Amino acid sequence: MKLLRYGPRGAEKPGMLDKDGAIRDLSKVVDDIAGSVLTPEGLAKLKALDPASLPKVEGPVRYGPCVARTGKFICVGLNYSDHAKETGAEPPKEPILFMKATSAIVGPDDEVMIPRNSRKTDWEVELGVIIGREARYVSEKDAMDHVAGYCVVNDVSEREFQAERGGQWTKGKSADTFGPIGPWLVTRDEVADPQNLALWLEVDGHRYQNGSTKTMIFGVRHLVHYISQFMSLQPGDVISTGTPPGVGLGIKPNPIFLKPGQVMRLGIEGLGEQRQQVIATP
Amino acid sequence: MKLLRYGPRGAEKPGMLDKDGAIRDLSKVVDDIAGSVLTPEGLAKLKALDPASLPKVEGPVRYGPCVARTGKFICVGLNYSDHAKETGAEPPKEPILFMKATSAIVGPDDEVMIPRNSRKTDWEVELGVIIGREARYVSEKDAMDHVAGYCVVNDVSEREFQAERGGQWTKGKSADTFGPIGPWLVTRDEVADPQNLALWLEVDGHRYQNGSTKTMIFGVRHLVHYISQFMSLQPGDVISTGTPPGVGLGIKPNPIFLKPGQVMRLGIEGLGEQRQQVIATP
Repeated sequence: MKLLRYGPRGAEKPGMLDKDGAIRDLSKVVDDIAGSVLTPEGLAKLKALDPASLPKVEGPVRYGPCVARTGKFICVGLNYSDHAKETGAEPPKEPILFMKATSAIVGPDDEVMIPRNSRKTDWEVELGVIIGREARYVSEKDAMDHVAGYCVVNDVSEREFQAERGGQWTKGKSADTFGPIGPWLVTRDEVADPQNLALWLEVDGHRYQNGSTKTMIFGVRHLVHYISQFMSLQPGDVISTGTPPGVGLGIKPNPIFLKPGQVMRLGIEGLGEQRQQVIATP
Repeated sequence: MKLLRYGPRGAEKPGMLDKDGAIRDLSKVVDDIAGSVLTPEGLAKLKALDPASLPKVEGPVRYGPCVARTGKFICVGLNYSDHAKETGAEPPKEPILFMKATSAIVGPDDEVMIPRNSRKTDWEVELGVIIGREARYVSEKDAMDHVAGYCVVNDVSEREFQAERGGQWTKGKSADTFGPIGPWLVTRDEVADPQNLALWLEVDGHRYQNGSTKTMIFGVRHLVHYISQFMSLQPGDVISTGTPPGVGLGIKPNPIFLKPGQVMRLGIEGLGEQRQQVIATP
């Protein structure tokens, strides 16, 4: 299934895609794409529905973030061997974790605002993992039972805030609009192998990132297991699993950063595409 | 006012203290101590109530976290000059920010669990600042208008996870039960000077921390201003403002860490006390 949320910001309704790519309204069935709806039981109920029996949503709509009530937005740093190399860092021996503010979350096609006083706003296409069932100290063997599905994430990052303003990356990762997620939560059963997905990002039509989740250092299964040793994971939590090579910071000899007026497009095989207009913070 | 939440975990009700220190039930007045209840308008409505007109809560109760629906739990590192010294770090030039998982939040007297495979679980009494009104790019001058009130926080920390397991402190700060907050949200009007509060922490009756918010490097006003340049703050967000000297890691010549069976007691002048039994993770 491809689950989604559509409508004006803060008033999104739950929906799903039908076979023809039309949105079907789920608001009579579930309150939102969140919480217990994401558990194996909750997803089984949705799967049992006939999409054709649900109201069809007509006309163009805004997509909201594909999951609601996210309690934690956990990111994995330097998790592609080639990306670690482009930043000049050693590949990590175990996953590097940091948090993005949940207030940074926006829809997949919403505007991305360059923060005030920013000079180094950058892009990062990432595979997002959405938790479906609470996870505490789960084994690698059982880890995937806690995954509801996947989505596209743009882990927008301000490199000066991240690395030159006194320790801890969260400062450069948390500005409003720095976390587009969606368009869809694609349920786990539809993704044959999360470690074999092409992912890419373009700015103004120029392709900067062109990778595959094959080159992740720590795969989804290991990450869910690993993170659950340090904190519990709840339904709706999002793990953003790191970015492949091609971020602006890594461009030689001169890094490139985002400017107002530019457009980012990014996508992951089977998980859909995002498109963000870059603007200055009003 | 001293606002609070009482009752079983996950089913807490809102309440307030009356003049005699008895709990008065607010559940007929507000749905929770959260969101718009924390805005200046929301707090003014509560202040206009006569506590004697509210149902008195009899008998001993469990205190829950003093605020609900916290979207972000933002911590400030090395924010007391003496604490920076005891850890061997230079005092920071600007605030160091990191995030604690909101899933770590518990009531002030709940048990604190030592994570599995932990050898270095430590304590940190901190002044918590609870946001009352959304803050984006606020000036220092206006910063305090966005503060609903204050609370005691124990920023429980696993030092090996924090510093020896590959970058980024969040890994050692986010275990379940690592964030007792409360007992009360003490509204800003009752705290004459947040930069002149005694704060202390004892383990099994031995006083390890005994400081004053006077020795903070960056005060509350500056922190709210500063953080709002990097992310927006929403009602219910908690900023934990750093810890004074006396953490277990800083003890010479041999650091001391928590063991199951120990009891932590901590408090801040005017903001109440916490008491946590330390247990192993079941």
